[in-house]
Amino acid sequence: MKTMDQCLTALVSVLGTPEKDIPLHAPYFGGNEWKYVKSCIDTGWVSSVGEYVNLFETKLIEYTKANYAVAVVNGTAALHIGLILANVNADDEVLIPSLTFIATANAVAYCGAIPHFIDSHPSNLGIDIEKLRNYLKENTIVKDRTCINKKSLRKITAIIPVHIFGHPVDMDALDEICQEYHLTIIEDASESLGSYYKGKHTGSFCDIAVLSFNGNKTVTCGGGGAILLKNAEMAKRAKHLTTTAKRAHRWEFYHDELGYNYRLPNINAALGCAQLEQLSGFVEKKRILAHQYYEAFQGIDIATILQESPYAKSNYWLNALILKKPDRQFVSSFIELANEHKLGLRGLWTPLDTLPMYLQCPKMDLSQTYALFDSVIALPSSPNLGSNYA
Amino acid sequence: MKTMDQCLTALVSVLGTPEKDIPLHAPYFGGNEWKYVKSCIDTGWVSSVGEYVNLFETKLIEYTKANYAVAVVNGTAALHIGLILANVNADDEVLIPSLTFIATANAVAYCGAIPHFIDSHPSNLGIDIEKLRNYLKENTIVKDRTCINKKSLRKITAIIPVHIFGHPVDMDALDEICQEYHLTIIEDASESLGSYYKGKHTGSFCDIAVLSFNGNKTVTCGGGGAILLKNAEMAKRAKHLTTTAKRAHRWEFYHDELGYNYRLPNINAALGCAQLEQLSGFVEKKRILAHQYYEAFQGIDIATILQESPYAKSNYWLNALILKKPDRQFVSSFIELANEHKLGLRGLWTPLDTLPMYLQCPKMDLSQTYALFDSVIALPSSPNLGSNYA
Repeated sequence: MKTMDQCLTALVSVLGTPEKDIPLHAPYFGGNEWKYVKSCIDTGWVSSVGEYVNLFETKLIEYTKANYAVAVVNGTAALHIGLILANVNADDEVLIPSLTFIATANAVAYCGAIPHFIDSHPSNLGIDIEKLRNYLKENTIVKDRTCINKKSLRKITAIIPVHIFGHPVDMDALDEICQEYHLTIIEDASESLGSYYKGKHTGSFCDIAVLSFNGNKTVTCGGGGAILLKNAEMAKRAKHLTTTAKRAHRWEFYHDELGYNYRLPNINAALGCAQLEQLSGFVEKKRILAHQYYEAFQGIDIATILQESPYAKSNYWLNALILKKPDRQFVSSFIELANEHKLGLRGLWTPLDTLPMYLQCPKMDLSQTYALFDSVIALPSSPNLGSNYA
Repeated sequence: MKTMDQCLTALVSVLGTPEKDIPLHAPYFGGNEWKYVKSCIDTGWVSSVGEYVNLFETKLIEYTKANYAVAVVNGTAALHIGLILANVNADDEVLIPSLTFIATANAVAYCGAIPHFIDSHPSNLGIDIEKLRNYLKENTIVKDRTCINKKSLRKITAIIPVHIFGHPVDMDALDEICQEYHLTIIEDASESLGSYYKGKHTGSFCDIAVLSFNGNKTVTCGGGGAILLKNAEMAKRAKHLTTTAKRAHRWEFYHDELGYNYRLPNINAALGCAQLEQLSGFVEKKRILAHQYYEAFQGIDIATILQESPYAKSNYWLNALILKKPDRQFVSSFIELANEHKLGLRGLWTPLDTLPMYLQCPKMDLSQTYALFDSVIALPSSPNLGSNYA
């Protein structure tokens, strides 16, 4: 109990004693949000037609240096389309971490494909790449430039690395494996807008990457997402698939393949444009907050604050307090206690392989995932907290 | 060419000579749109949390007298969830008109099910119910309270009547057939908010119905939709499925089935709330416009304006000019001509059974559908047109 009190004291030293609930991550609207949204309403362009969707895509390209960006309705939709672009078909397997938000697995299921769960590493909460290498060596064969699961005999088509809490996976090491095993990478940068890997923005160096602008993200559209692409042909197809696969025509309605109604409304894009203008400032403040958390927990033996990898600059979307020894009881009790004190702590996502709809899916040994689930606590990480709090 | 000029003159007599393009249907923001949307931004509640989603659902229930309403991201998502609630499984067939927007067929495909196309009637552009009755009698058998397609041997689980352009299908007659053949009805009221069937709002009397609030609809959320439900258990499941099937918990993440990220963001719901407050006035104006079109085309031999059925009160979402004799050439040429004159006329949707991804699907004789495709022209129908134009 003493250590629990120490942890609470450390939190309060950063966040102050809250008068009202401090959520895990709240949006901050301090720029042109009202101006842009108002202009949508005043012009009547709130829906699929309007300038802000294009402007939002342009701003995303400018910020991330991706070649192309296609705005969509949310990160889940972006993942779904990303998998289709990667030619993931029904009954294929897709490697994904068990330790991530449910959308990653669901998007695989939407394709009729099967999530194949892989383990995560405590250094950055992302895919354990060395373990993956050994696992693939032992459990798959490559035939005709196709990776086959030796046990299920199904094709393993793709892999989705997720930059958990904003911390980049070691993409060079992963890329080497993916080339050897002919796996297409769909980079899930939903949590890592503003994070860099070896100086390049996450999501900007793979053929296919996805972003999310949900209300709990670093910047928000209310709801929103985007697909980042390297290649013009793929970008064109992404736009086509997300707009009901309708052929361009002034007054005819002709759709040439199974499409989706995934386009981002203009009013949400307007909000996103205003938010993107403030992104650099948000990331700066979030990094200061992360440092404050780090300092505050320096004197506490049982836990540390997750730090970015040497190759990475993290947006610290969410700060992670990691127990040195897994302790489910401590995790639950401390989250309860903090929430009673109006501090909106959360646990990690229940490992996806243990959820009823994914119980039968193939998986490697996930001991590190389970240990992380019993060790990691997410801390309030809005940009205006800590010494940034005005 | 003389008749084409006459038709153009009739249009101009209603709409005036436009200085700028008159779109097919534009939103009108004359109420609390600013106030509600600004309050989202000011409070920071733009996303999944916030009061407007609940308020929007309450207002929908008040207006339609449905028992329950679940707001979602668009009408396509509403259809998808409606089909899941109707227990439509992979390889089932679902009866849908060939003459409707692509979303109806796509939602069936998202379930892994197969659209089975049925014909439409010129009196209201909706399902030809007598033809359906004869078709089912001849082509299906009922076994263990299940309707089986005699040819494909697949189960026919459900049917989606669409109230095209706001004109209600004869639901009593349809219901009788559906009871006989054990078909679940998913009522597609995407185009018929403000339309009534025998005094009841469309979508309020079936177990499952859907609405759309796309930018081209009578009222809009930018993008949005809703599922209307009769039964509390189903409403609960609809909310669960559309919010990633996450169990309610303050800080744990546990999802108990395959769910979807289909919730409507609060900022879009705020816009929708303001729009719903003006709905009655919009419908009144749209009915006046419809009457003006009717009068203007009275003297023209080759075409008429579609009128509501005796049992119905239509919102006249889109006014339909119907040629007395199908004439593809006239339809195309007149739409071209009108668009050159800044009048945003459109054709009907290409019959869905002729699109490449649905070519192999089962279908009845669709001669009336093809004739309608070559006869119907949609006219600009925003509430502020005609004598309503200030």
